[in-house]
Amino acid sequence: MTETVPTPRLVIDDEEIFAAHHGGKLSVELKSPLDTQRALSIAYTPGVAQVSRAIAADHTLAARYTWANRLVVVVSDGTAVLGLGDIGPAASLPVMEGKSALFKTFGGLDSIPIVLDTKDPDEIVETLIRLRPTFGAVNLEDISAPRCFEIERRLIEALDCPVMHDDQHGTAIVVLAALLGAVKVLDRDMTGLKVVISGAGAAGVACANILLASGISHITVLDSKGVIHTGRDDLNPFKAELAQRTNPDQHSGGMAEALAGADVFLGVSAGVVPEELIATMAPGGIVFAMSNPDPEIHPEVAKKYAAIVATGRSDFPNQINNVLAFPGVFRGALDAGARRITEKMKVAAAQAIFSVVGDDLASDHIVPSPLDPRVGPAVAAAVAAASETD
Amino acid sequence: MTETVPTPRLVIDDEEIFAAHHGGKLSVELKSPLDTQRALSIAYTPGVAQVSRAIAADHTLAARYTWANRLVVVVSDGTAVLGLGDIGPAASLPVMEGKSALFKTFGGLDSIPIVLDTKDPDEIVETLIRLRPTFGAVNLEDISAPRCFEIERRLIEALDCPVMHDDQHGTAIVVLAALLGAVKVLDRDMTGLKVVISGAGAAGVACANILLASGISHITVLDSKGVIHTGRDDLNPFKAELAQRTNPDQHSGGMAEALAGADVFLGVSAGVVPEELIATMAPGGIVFAMSNPDPEIHPEVAKKYAAIVATGRSDFPNQINNVLAFPGVFRGALDAGARRITEKMKVAAAQAIFSVVGDDLASDHIVPSPLDPRVGPAVAAAVAAASETD
Repeated sequence: MTETVPTPRLVIDDEEIFAAHHGGKLSVELKSPLDTQRALSIAYTPGVAQVSRAIAADHTLAARYTWANRLVVVVSDGTAVLGLGDIGPAASLPVMEGKSALFKTFGGLDSIPIVLDTKDPDEIVETLIRLRPTFGAVNLEDISAPRCFEIERRLIEALDCPVMHDDQHGTAIVVLAALLGAVKVLDRDMTGLKVVISGAGAAGVACANILLASGISHITVLDSKGVIHTGRDDLNPFKAELAQRTNPDQHSGGMAEALAGADVFLGVSAGVVPEELIATMAPGGIVFAMSNPDPEIHPEVAKKYAAIVATGRSDFPNQINNVLAFPGVFRGALDAGARRITEKMKVAAAQAIFSVVGDDLASDHIVPSPLDPRVGPAVAAAVAAASETD
Repeated sequence: MTETVPTPRLVIDDEEIFAAHHGGKLSVELKSPLDTQRALSIAYTPGVAQVSRAIAADHTLAARYTWANRLVVVVSDGTAVLGLGDIGPAASLPVMEGKSALFKTFGGLDSIPIVLDTKDPDEIVETLIRLRPTFGAVNLEDISAPRCFEIERRLIEALDCPVMHDDQHGTAIVVLAALLGAVKVLDRDMTGLKVVISGAGAAGVACANILLASGISHITVLDSKGVIHTGRDDLNPFKAELAQRTNPDQHSGGMAEALAGADVFLGVSAGVVPEELIATMAPGGIVFAMSNPDPEIHPEVAKKYAAIVATGRSDFPNQINNVLAFPGVFRGALDAGARRITEKMKVAAAQAIFSVVGDDLASDHIVPSPLDPRVGPAVAAAVAAASETD
């Protein structure tokens, strides 16, 4: 009965993809040319000595006279790259370059990839502490769970600048935005929804957290072994902690038990959900099958049972894509001079994404297009405002 | 009797300098825009997964499909910035941004500044080893002596890519180029010259080395305590080693003893040399007073005694500026896929700089202008060729 998951519809041959990556996707350029003796004397010696001397006397001036204060480093150790797993730092670099390109395009921020030849959380944290004067914010990317939780927490403590693991919070923000759109279309109360999250990695844990913070109490999270509850003795500390805060009735079992009568399915694993189980959800439900490139269930199949269906794919309606969130989140945090990206700022980002949909809101348009140029500035403004009232 | 050193002639007010540094001097740009769904699908998901998968299977493909293989990191700990001393990493950043801008302008290479909040050689080396997949070459900059010697040596051993401390070898290359020009103008034999080097830091040691390698045996180096010779018990290991290879007659004393009858004075310290001592040099000599912004002796005063005078300043003839060397040296090394920047490549770089002067060679034009666009490509070609015959 299970449908085969679709192959991508947007067919681009490998030759075109590889040609577009030749030599990488980024370029460092000068803001003004060094083509005269005068320009050289201003940007380099002797002029630059005046600027260095001023910063030496007052370190806060580095924020004004260098690029570092607004430079986002996209940092990965290559341990959880896309759906490809632990393929190493060199192989992760094309993704990180792409991310830096997205920061520029949708957030107007300079960004550089930093890929690390170590998987040791101590060494990753220590390295970024040593690099601290080089950058203004840290976007952690494609770092495997549960290591990503510890690395993010320790960096937030150690660095006086915005730090965010996008696979966690970028995903959570866009999921919340999409859910705000879905309940508006369906005219339902969000807090009463019964939510099932398939996947207890970076994205699953962060989605659970932002939904709990948004007032949803009925959340059940599943890992590859089944429903997470306090009776299990095979949970890592992060899942054990999650078991305390989710699954209020402490049900056990697998996907069948979890999905029966559920209102929302959030897929953030690489798994597959059989049609028979989606059929047991409460009528008029919501399915976000976000696994990439293969959704947990084909959206056209899910549509037979659910009122609203979204995926991570660009070739189906309702694409849930992190690019709606991270450029504006970092831009807003840096614009406001924020030292932390708080839960309040994340929720504000989700509301801003939702608000951009506006009158175009419909069951097949619960989030804006990732290319919508209004999203980045709207998110940045909302995040900056939320930061200032924190 | 000593002349006052000149104040800069190229007057640029602070307001203009600081305005030019607002927000920094660099920008990260996309090689092609991400303005369509198709472009997004190629540069980011799902297309980028093909590239990451290919690199995971064959790590050498990272050189072709990312920017890292040709990215130069300009690395400093801020311990010896220009003539300003140990002003720290944040204050060094405007200089490093300027350096990255010069790499792009004269070498066509992407480059990013990395400034480190540690002065510990072990930590600096360890950090760059961890960052290794991020870059393709390391330009060390403004790191104090004698630490710079150990850090460079250890990085050359640890990293399979070009590493060069520009304050040492960039200076040495341009000094050799200028000396080639000077002896051609004067129709003298270089190897017979009696050379005095004032300064035994990064530049002084490297100049001594490249001149020794070029066949000059009569070299006397002075530090702040006087002539370096094997009888001194106050020398650090690098100076002690230098004492073995220079000063063949093992003279002692100070600048007066060293300069009497010398053919060449190379000033790479922040010191001052009195006119009376320059007057004791052999007639028709060569004075390179390269201290910045204040030359060791005013070039017009030196000209009363020496046949050829050069400085580091742009407002006098014969500017000895590292920008003539480092962009082409790294470009040539990367073009050739060289893992090391050898002495032979450095000498080839000096000869290439000298060769660009060509028919314009004159006593007030022994090196090309730093803005001469022919220099970078000529140096790159010579360095690449020297690498391949190594």
